[in-house]
Amino acid sequence: MPRPDADLADMVVRECGRRWPQGATQPPGRLLRPMLVLESAMAVGGDPVRILPAAVGFECSHVGGLVHEEIIHRSGGPADAIVAANALLFEWFRALSECVDRGVPPERVTEAMRIQASTGIDSCRGTELELASTLHSGLDGYLRMARLKTAAPLAAACRVGAVLSGASPEQTNALAEFGDALGLAYQIREDIRTYERNVEAVTRDGRGDVQVRRLSLPVLIAHDSACPRDRARIERLLTTRSTPDRLPELVEIVRRSGACGTAIRMAEQYAAHARTVLTALPPSGHRVRLAGMTSAMNATIPLRRHVDG
Amino acid sequence: MPRPDADLADMVVRECGRRWPQGATQPPGRLLRPMLVLESAMAVGGDPVRILPAAVGFECSHVGGLVHEEIIHRSGGPADAIVAANALLFEWFRALSECVDRGVPPERVTEAMRIQASTGIDSCRGTELELASTLHSGLDGYLRMARLKTAAPLAAACRVGAVLSGASPEQTNALAEFGDALGLAYQIREDIRTYERNVEAVTRDGRGDVQVRRLSLPVLIAHDSACPRDRARIERLLTTRSTPDRLPELVEIVRRSGACGTAIRMAEQYAAHARTVLTALPPSGHRVRLAGMTSAMNATIPLRRHVDG
Repeated sequence: MPRPDADLADMVVRECGRRWPQGATQPPGRLLRPMLVLESAMAVGGDPVRILPAAVGFECSHVGGLVHEEIIHRSGGPADAIVAANALLFEWFRALSECVDRGVPPERVTEAMRIQASTGIDSCRGTELELASTLHSGLDGYLRMARLKTAAPLAAACRVGAVLSGASPEQTNALAEFGDALGLAYQIREDIRTYERNVEAVTRDGRGDVQVRRLSLPVLIAHDSACPRDRARIERLLTTRSTPDRLPELVEIVRRSGACGTAIRMAEQYAAHARTVLTALPPSGHRVRLAGMTSAMNATIPLRRHVDG
Repeated sequence: MPRPDADLADMVVRECGRRWPQGATQPPGRLLRPMLVLESAMAVGGDPVRILPAAVGFECSHVGGLVHEEIIHRSGGPADAIVAANALLFEWFRALSECVDRGVPPERVTEAMRIQASTGIDSCRGTELELASTLHSGLDGYLRMARLKTAAPLAAACRVGAVLSGASPEQTNALAEFGDALGLAYQIREDIRTYERNVEAVTRDGRGDVQVRRLSLPVLIAHDSACPRDRARIERLLTTRSTPDRLPELVEIVRRSGACGTAIRMAEQYAAHARTVLTALPPSGHRVRLAGMTSAMNATIPLRRHVDG
């Protein structure tokens, strides 16, 4: 008969296998932390099966930390920034925990935690899709990417607000759908901005190359609708290594194609959908302001008071 | 009278100011996400004061994501790794949320979330201290760093296991103290390994330079107790940019100083303390195995079964 601790390790190994399927980026490590969780729990009479997810979660965070450390030590580069960013991601959850102190029922907070964590993972997947995106990703690929990377966090913001408030499932889903549509409208408008702004301004702020490298909707639409010669030019511009003058050429092709008009209409459709789903909520000033966010994305927050005193 | 939404924004700005004191790495962004949380909450009758921490948490994660994105786009380097690491950090919390499905009372899960998030932040602070550490950090500086970076996650693993199991505060604290002492013993032994292993092996695995660059306890002790000439040599070796042959010289000085013996005695003291605090728990096989982890850190998990079939 296997020793009890070997049984526990076996349970942890199987759970890790379930969560890290083959081909995943990182294998689990030495499993010290999950074993500490489980042994500590059982030392005070806990049920290891109930606690297993939390135990395996510790391995996730541990391996994540190791990867970051490897990056830090190898590149010697933006170590402080990576560390500071991590601290902020953790702060996401520490802040949420304070809602309990403020009287939110714990079962709502745990549901919110689940939403936050899933959204964080979705957002990472969206970034992975973005890094892998090409002109052949197509509109579906673009929307899948934008939904995960940009819309999911906004949908989650709405959903968490609703869940922590004890909203009905209908209201919660309406708010999440609002956030999703808002996020897509927002991402598309953001994409368009590069091609609407003065080229010199984009180049000057040092983000021009980033804007070009990232596959954006206007480029995708322009590529789809362009004549063979322009298609070839777009492909060449996106695959060439960074050159200072490829942005003006790309902007010129995109503007000429009328792609921004098509993209603006798509953004408006998402914004309109966002306003429509809000009608599932009772009328209120808050509903009005949520609806207002669909048209005034760049002036959402009235910070003027703080500037004026 | 200010508009209600301006009041909300004001509340968010003040909360951000409280959490991101001056001198912090990142200022808050446009506050879109916190406003979405609060407006969504109030659209269904929620109390914004109760939900404020969760709202501001969304800004933390947002800014954290922006920083990572900046790193990714600027360095063009290990983007996939950074993204994968983030997904794992989020998985920490998603996994924890599954404990609710398995019958752990939500109030215990929220307490565990708080512990996890605080520990994540502590660990980041430990890494920051490590990046900033010098020979002048002294033993206190070393222990503060090791405690935050290495011991805090182990203490949290124990604490979370206890909390999710409904342990008494005394048992919970004993387990956390155990994890802390275990973590310090572990870090010190890890530090010593570089100076006990065959120099060629350390150099060959490509980690030699990392081991040297990181301020470790044996070097600190050797520096404290060395003759003026060796002190100067240690200082020169640690401040020089990477050279392939500085590791053998450092190893030679450290070995000659007897610093490893002093460090081993420190590790043993922490391990002994860890075993002592465990006596606050009822006797069990789990307590025995926890105690066993203090002496057999490199053979914690009986994975042999999986290899043997």
